[in-house]
Amino acid sequence: MQFTSDIVEKAVDALSSFPGIGKRTALRMVMYLLKRPELEVASISERILRLKTDLKFCRNCGTVSDFEYCSICSDPQRQKEVICVVEDFSDLMAIEATSQFKGEYHVLGGLISPMDGIGPSDLNLQSLFERISNSEGGISEVILALSATVEGDTTMYYIAKKLQEFGVTVSSIARGISVGGELEYVDEITLGRSLLQRTHYSV
Amino acid sequence: MQFTSDIVEKAVDALSSFPGIGKRTALRMVMYLLKRPELEVASISERILRLKTDLKFCRNCGTVSDFEYCSICSDPQRQKEVICVVEDFSDLMAIEATSQFKGEYHVLGGLISPMDGIGPSDLNLQSLFERISNSEGGISEVILALSATVEGDTTMYYIAKKLQEFGVTVSSIARGISVGGELEYVDEITLGRSLLQRTHYSV
Repeated sequence: MQFTSDIVEKAVDALSSFPGIGKRTALRMVMYLLKRPELEVASISERILRLKTDLKFCRNCGTVSDFEYCSICSDPQRQKEVICVVEDFSDLMAIEATSQFKGEYHVLGGLISPMDGIGPSDLNLQSLFERISNSEGGISEVILALSATVEGDTTMYYIAKKLQEFGVTVSSIARGISVGGELEYVDEITLGRSLLQRTHYSV
Repeated sequence: MQFTSDIVEKAVDALSSFPGIGKRTALRMVMYLLKRPELEVASISERILRLKTDLKFCRNCGTVSDFEYCSICSDPQRQKEVICVVEDFSDLMAIEATSQFKGEYHVLGGLISPMDGIGPSDLNLQSLFERISNSEGGISEVILALSATVEGDTTMYYIAKKLQEFGVTVSSIARGISVGGELEYVDEITLGRSLLQRTHYSV
């Protein structure tokens, strides 16, 4: 692309650095910004910057927060004895959206991935183990809600192995066919797992 | 979506204000930003802001520029007597990418669209007419390179009508089948036009 303005080119470069945003989409985004009032563009610019300057990570669970402790960890209504371990704060949000979980979370900030050079020490794992050993009322269960990938499985195995010494129940979210999923379209591995991990059905 | 941080929520709102970017994509963009160094995020934020604070529009053709006159209008090699009228600077870039045009441009900043309340006075049209009447060497041809839509056709008609008094040749870019296009898949209107506007073929 040949630009008549370096400022426009740099803005396109900046926006196309996002994953999934190509040069053409970035150019369309810049054209949109040019048509918006200056105050609005300044607000977008500031909101992006504040992600780095003002955002905190909860000292208890590690999720994104505006304060030292996040709204979930500060909520006295949540069950302190159940911890749900997730990869990222977006997974936390996904679980919160189900309204099925009343405990607390622990955000790892990634998954163990030797291919990408990410080991256990790169994740918020030490804080999880400290949290469990230091908890006053004791932790009764740790639910591992990680992706059903090689990295997710590796991380699950690592955590479960480590938690053996703490004597807490470790569970994993169920893997099976999706609700509303038609059997003939389910892949064999998922279908096989859902058979092995069948649950008791009572009427 | 339930956010544990207002800062994250506001950033997601800001990014999802772009056309074609939904909440989920915006959330993914925020997660990407959180993993980047602060300097890089500050640079993205600043590049967005500079679009409004530092960017200029060329005083001759109206395209985006870092200076009073854009790089094309300041180039003595360009033919001053041929003006190509385009809707936006992205169309200018698309034509520049063909390397087939050596004249200058005029960027309208939109098209006449009564449905959206955009009339001739909302576009850079007055500056085009002034540019033609004030030009020292005279303008020999005005090429209208506008979209083949109702708005594009309306704008073309308006400009062509106005330019009658200036006695310049007005032309429009050819409409026909795409290069590489298979005849059977071309819509009837385009195919009909390409028949009417057939060109002499010599070997």
